[in-house]
Amino acid sequence: MVRGRISRLSVRDVRFPTSLGGHGSDAMHTDPDYSAAYVIIETDAEDGLKGYGITFTLGKGTEVVVCAVNALAHHVLNKNLRDIVNDFRGIYRQLTSDGQLRWIGPEKGVVHLATAAILNALWDLWAKQEGKPLWKLLVDMDPKTLLSCIDFRYISDALTEEEAYEILQKGQAGNKEREVQMLAHGYPAYTTSCAWLGYSDNTLKQLCSVALRDGWTRFKVKVGADLQDDIRRCRLIRDMIGPEKTLMMDANQRWDVPEAVEWVSKLAEFKPLWIEEPTSPDDILGHAAISKALAPLGIGVATGEQCHNRVIFKQLLQANALQFLQIDSCRLGSVNENLSVLLMAQKFGIPVCPHAGGVGLCELVQHLIIFDYISVSASLTNSSCFQD
Amino acid sequence: MVRGRISRLSVRDVRFPTSLGGHGSDAMHTDPDYSAAYVIIETDAEDGLKGYGITFTLGKGTEVVVCAVNALAHHVLNKNLRDIVNDFRGIYRQLTSDGQLRWIGPEKGVVHLATAAILNALWDLWAKQEGKPLWKLLVDMDPKTLLSCIDFRYISDALTEEEAYEILQKGQAGNKEREVQMLAHGYPAYTTSCAWLGYSDNTLKQLCSVALRDGWTRFKVKVGADLQDDIRRCRLIRDMIGPEKTLMMDANQRWDVPEAVEWVSKLAEFKPLWIEEPTSPDDILGHAAISKALAPLGIGVATGEQCHNRVIFKQLLQANALQFLQIDSCRLGSVNENLSVLLMAQKFGIPVCPHAGGVGLCELVQHLIIFDYISVSASLTNSSCFQD
Repeated sequence: MVRGRISRLSVRDVRFPTSLGGHGSDAMHTDPDYSAAYVIIETDAEDGLKGYGITFTLGKGTEVVVCAVNALAHHVLNKNLRDIVNDFRGIYRQLTSDGQLRWIGPEKGVVHLATAAILNALWDLWAKQEGKPLWKLLVDMDPKTLLSCIDFRYISDALTEEEAYEILQKGQAGNKEREVQMLAHGYPAYTTSCAWLGYSDNTLKQLCSVALRDGWTRFKVKVGADLQDDIRRCRLIRDMIGPEKTLMMDANQRWDVPEAVEWVSKLAEFKPLWIEEPTSPDDILGHAAISKALAPLGIGVATGEQCHNRVIFKQLLQANALQFLQIDSCRLGSVNENLSVLLMAQKFGIPVCPHAGGVGLCELVQHLIIFDYISVSASLTNSSCFQD
Repeated sequence: MVRGRISRLSVRDVRFPTSLGGHGSDAMHTDPDYSAAYVIIETDAEDGLKGYGITFTLGKGTEVVVCAVNALAHHVLNKNLRDIVNDFRGIYRQLTSDGQLRWIGPEKGVVHLATAAILNALWDLWAKQEGKPLWKLLVDMDPKTLLSCIDFRYISDALTEEEAYEILQKGQAGNKEREVQMLAHGYPAYTTSCAWLGYSDNTLKQLCSVALRDGWTRFKVKVGADLQDDIRRCRLIRDMIGPEKTLMMDANQRWDVPEAVEWVSKLAEFKPLWIEEPTSPDDILGHAAISKALAPLGIGVATGEQCHNRVIFKQLLQANALQFLQIDSCRLGSVNENLSVLLMAQKFGIPVCPHAGGVGLCELVQHLIIFDYISVSASLTNSSCFQD
């Protein structure tokens, strides 16, 4: 039973000095300090439960997100949690459509990251009060209630509420078996931990050996800074993992559209499953052009970790601009907006491979992708991977 | 001669209580308090000149932009102004591609607004040191120098630097005459001041009479909250201004795509030149669909005031998604990014009608549009309008 009035919302600026070791480094983010704006929501209920929510950042600028969280807090403070979850679509709309604050977004950048952190904390609190992990809360929720959490504004030309309902109804067939399967075997994953751009070849080899010994079968390598360097590193990894295991490449937005096609064509011999973020995350038509050019080489396009809202994902799907869709659990507006993207991906037949790897992302995203498998996609084909 | 080292960057949170009178109100921003984050840059030069730059906001959240300005300030502090303007492309790239701060953008939302405010201050200081208004600084600049201010990243598939150079070379024919014409007659404009959504019919009538008496020939009306209300208000204005004068409509992103087409079709009898912001500013394919549907009715689509960067404008042009392009002088990354959009618009043959009307926007945008007329478009056909 959902209970309590939101009595306090606090937010912390949490930073880790990961740049010291080059961890997380790529072609565009050469010195990230993995960080988070960390929201804690308390109620006046006697259970003492708190909701924790984050948005991931790279160090500098976390204080800007913290400032935005404080600017948005009044939309949830002093509200009853029951009223919030009973009209979760309404609260989402209220946070994202504040008549003054939306100007500095809307639904993008700092204010949207702050919105995600606040909503993530509300979902966490709801799940805790129900005594369930988030994925189980979602899996057990009846379709009508689940849809009442989603704002369909701006996506109704691609997915109506009625279509979304049909997808969820269809997803109920076999869901119990898939839940048992997930509990027994977990969700498959891949690793990027061996091949950050800032690592030396020796470090890369050593980490790759360890990953192989640990049983990893899917490996992602960062590319895009220097072509000869990429060729050397990709050859090194492909030689180590052999021809059967899966290799993915990630350019982190380094290229213009023609450059992306040219560069990736020169890496085609290493048989990547996908090229991730070949260009600007805003460039839907660019991703469509790259997808079309690389399809004959058997290379797919993956993107999403910096796609700022459901409107961008809608268009990437409409334009056949990606073959792997990478939601981010705290760049999109929390579970609410992620649900809409999972449902659109299902309608368009595109597998979802969430972005993770940063502070808290692996924890957050597992709930979404397990729900996706059990209740929406019912498939692990090609979507069997996450961990940036 | 450009001179001085940037010795100080300060930023103020300036707000005006415009919501008290419903000024600036529309279908999505019902209670705006017109505001700005106001940047002041000082140097150690003896001339005592300061650079002033702003980004426009709607009240709440201005403190978030102020926080982002402070996070970005170190990129310009202690630099020589000469080094900055000699590598303005490099400074633009540095501000927008900071390896940690770009995560909370990139090139969108709060950090991009903050970038715009800082760069606007640098342009202001440069123009002051040259003893010219900004438009004249731009008009007098040789094409190579002008292009060295633009970051072509992510737009080279639509406009190469070479193509941009040809456009500027071509724009030199007749530029002296156009400059004389601008100085003598100014740039044509339209007014929205009579028809904010929060105004009563009586206020609307009264303001419309005054505007007609003052010689205005182009009028914009806010629509999108209620269809019957829109019909009444549009009829009222069309009756007052007569069939010859120009009427534009502005929905401020109120609709989904199918809804936009249906709603605007019902307002077609009032012969609007354009429907502005019919849907999400992120929806390129949506705007293309609306453009296509409304073309047979003789109604164009205008958008841009919330388009967050050149990548979005590039795609709107590539997709034939707009017939009037509305740059914003402080949502895009200052003059640097606006120049790239003016040049793309020229290549695609689309007139530019800047967004203005907020705090400082009319002042800022006149420089860009006068430069556009003198040095780029050389035409006033259909582009003869600005003011929110």
